[in-house]
Amino acid sequence: MKDIRVGLIGFGTIGKGVVKNIISNGGLIAQQTGIRLEIARIADIDLQRERDVSVDPSILTTDAEEVIHDDSIDIVVELIGGINPAREYVLTALRNGKHVVTANKALISKCGVEIFETARESGADVLYEASVAGCIPVIKSLRESLVANKVLSLDGIVNGTCNYILTRMQKDQMSFSSALEEAKAKGYAEADPSFDINGTDSAQKLAILASLASNSWVDVDRVYVEGIAHITQKDIAYAAELGYVLKLLAIAKFGSDWVQARVHPALLRRNHPLADVWDVHNAIYLVGDYAGEMMFYGQGAGEKPTASAVVSDIVDISRNIKSAARKRISSLPETASTKRLIPMNQIRGRYYLRFTVIDKPGVLAQITTVLGENGISISAVTQKERHLESAVAVIVMTHAAKEESIRAALKTIDSLDVVKDETLMIRIEESE
Amino acid sequence: MKDIRVGLIGFGTIGKGVVKNIISNGGLIAQQTGIRLEIARIADIDLQRERDVSVDPSILTTDAEEVIHDDSIDIVVELIGGINPAREYVLTALRNGKHVVTANKALISKCGVEIFETARESGADVLYEASVAGCIPVIKSLRESLVANKVLSLDGIVNGTCNYILTRMQKDQMSFSSALEEAKAKGYAEADPSFDINGTDSAQKLAILASLASNSWVDVDRVYVEGIAHITQKDIAYAAELGYVLKLLAIAKFGSDWVQARVHPALLRRNHPLADVWDVHNAIYLVGDYAGEMMFYGQGAGEKPTASAVVSDIVDISRNIKSAARKRISSLPETASTKRLIPMNQIRGRYYLRFTVIDKPGVLAQITTVLGENGISISAVTQKERHLESAVAVIVMTHAAKEESIRAALKTIDSLDVVKDETLMIRIEESE
Repeated sequence: MKDIRVGLIGFGTIGKGVVKNIISNGGLIAQQTGIRLEIARIADIDLQRERDVSVDPSILTTDAEEVIHDDSIDIVVELIGGINPAREYVLTALRNGKHVVTANKALISKCGVEIFETARESGADVLYEASVAGCIPVIKSLRESLVANKVLSLDGIVNGTCNYILTRMQKDQMSFSSALEEAKAKGYAEADPSFDINGTDSAQKLAILASLASNSWVDVDRVYVEGIAHITQKDIAYAAELGYVLKLLAIAKFGSDWVQARVHPALLRRNHPLADVWDVHNAIYLVGDYAGEMMFYGQGAGEKPTASAVVSDIVDISRNIKSAARKRISSLPETASTKRLIPMNQIRGRYYLRFTVIDKPGVLAQITTVLGENGISISAVTQKERHLESAVAVIVMTHAAKEESIRAALKTIDSLDVVKDETLMIRIEESE
Repeated sequence: MKDIRVGLIGFGTIGKGVVKNIISNGGLIAQQTGIRLEIARIADIDLQRERDVSVDPSILTTDAEEVIHDDSIDIVVELIGGINPAREYVLTALRNGKHVVTANKALISKCGVEIFETARESGADVLYEASVAGCIPVIKSLRESLVANKVLSLDGIVNGTCNYILTRMQKDQMSFSSALEEAKAKGYAEADPSFDINGTDSAQKLAILASLASNSWVDVDRVYVEGIAHITQKDIAYAAELGYVLKLLAIAKFGSDWVQARVHPALLRRNHPLADVWDVHNAIYLVGDYAGEMMFYGQGAGEKPTASAVVSDIVDISRNIKSAARKRISSLPETASTKRLIPMNQIRGRYYLRFTVIDKPGVLAQITTVLGENGISISAVTQKERHLESAVAVIVMTHAAKEESIRAALKTIDSLDVVKDETLMIRIEESE
């Protein structure tokens, strides 16, 4: 039996989950692996808070430095989130020869290169399965199970808050704001949900997945991001009539020397594997050149699922320690490559367009003329019953067109006198 | 860069796929891992067959012994299937200090203990991801990503042939025999499809998954097995009317000291994550005490997906060789445990029963009386229009009951004069 000493930084929801998991399933882990995990030290700025798990008070500290400088600790688990001071703790722990497990998507997507280089120099492991999609083993699968594949595309529902809101808007005809309020009341959305709603959280996760899938570094700040706050329940209903489901997707596509990476609301046909992922569930659908279509589905957040992922990373590193494996899987590709990020306006796809126009003859002709002048052909048109005092909604589904053509056409159309409001555009994502 | 020499035994569909994968994606693998894979030797009894991949003729041999006794080979890949001579090749390769990758479900489910013990003695790795559900990384996930979980249940669609036939029966109202003929014509079923149709293939895969999920050894010969040949298109249509989808499921449930393991047709509610898995796709739905619900979905067979899994196993072992890790993950739990296999007649569940009866007053009363006498309560009854000359179908959905009560009731009912044909029973599988 090999004893492994673990130090936690952050004793909030996930930290508690990790402690509970090791208490309740540590015996099972030992039976499976021959490894006995011991929580040696826990740092948190607030030690007074009520927690529904009891630990020996002598291992608690308010000073994270006591964890990262404790010579007896093998693995430091960073669970405080955000860039600072998490970055400094992780880097110092690595320089002190410790391995690191983190659930911190902001940190890995922003400072991954620096952290992985530091780990490489010290021969340490850095694992971060819980940073994307909770307990769904998509990071491990990309690094290991799909190692023999060129990943061609990846579409993820990786934000449970948005998926819950869109589920309530679609299944129960709720408005965006009521659905958001309900999500907050149920604890599915934070008091300030901006980073979920505006797509930032999904973009951080996508940057991590797209980097792994492409063996290059995808800069989170260059991922195209659009949130869901502008989507109305009406658009979801119109799309449903046409056989589509609306999701906030994290999308990446890959070529030999290029990457696409974008987060935006997207319409999926009802038979797409992701179309039936509802509520707070997460899922990642991907296509490999050998594996073909795959989907991973599960809980993307919460105390227990996240703890499941964190502890599996702790065990993974412990197995390396026990078997004396050094640098078994490098955090960065052995040979770094750079890939061109395709700008959003160069991307081709199909579009849902909702025009808000005056209800009089010739209006549709004006709109379709502009679309035609921009080389955009139409696959379906529906004019809706009047829903505003003086305007009607016209829904146009296009054939494949370039984003820059769509944007140019909408700029012209939105300046027409007959158009009463900014046109709403939603991209359509096709399965392979 | 670390060179790893691989020897293949079996140069059929999967063997070809492995060779093609290493030719086309070997560079990518080297870039990610620092490992260069080389196919050093290939044995097959038939070297004359046309193959759409070219290899250096000097590495080909008809004698598998030349592979397993070649001192330069690090990893032997067994792709011939069946127990003999695969068992002897694998055991000898392990005794010769080689690591082994196999896609052989029959071998692992039947001779796993012997093989893993031999591997343990020689310090070698044996990996077998491709033996269950093609490229879906369910074995790796159970051994690694779910290591911190007590797995509570597992439901798998792990036979693409049966899933294809049931899809055609359900979506296109085909008969079982026409659907089977079509599956053969499309190459989804073998010339002799008995092992797929009668559930044997699924049982072998379930024995492997249930063993991993329970950290005990589930004897494949004790898995309850029922195939799909007795299911009629009518039953599928009746079940659909009631909101159910029919699948051939591999089901395991787990307690602290017991295991259930069974393969049989089962009805799922339409919102069950497995209900939308169609055609030749495979999927495994499982529930962990920390992870909660998860599903893994993908291609369960075929040259390329299977090659993807085999090569990922080769890379996994190569990473151990490169990092000098010995016995990093043992094939058997460190501490073996034995668990009680619950006999089929002790299992409780809900049932779909189709009675074929004379169309006259009092018949339903006779049937329901027998059900009541056996403690079985009814949740729904439908009498169908006459479809045989002198008989009608009565569909009964039960509340939860013990299998032995159902069997006793059906024995009595099927001996009644008013019952014209053996009653058809299909189990209902509820999601968590």
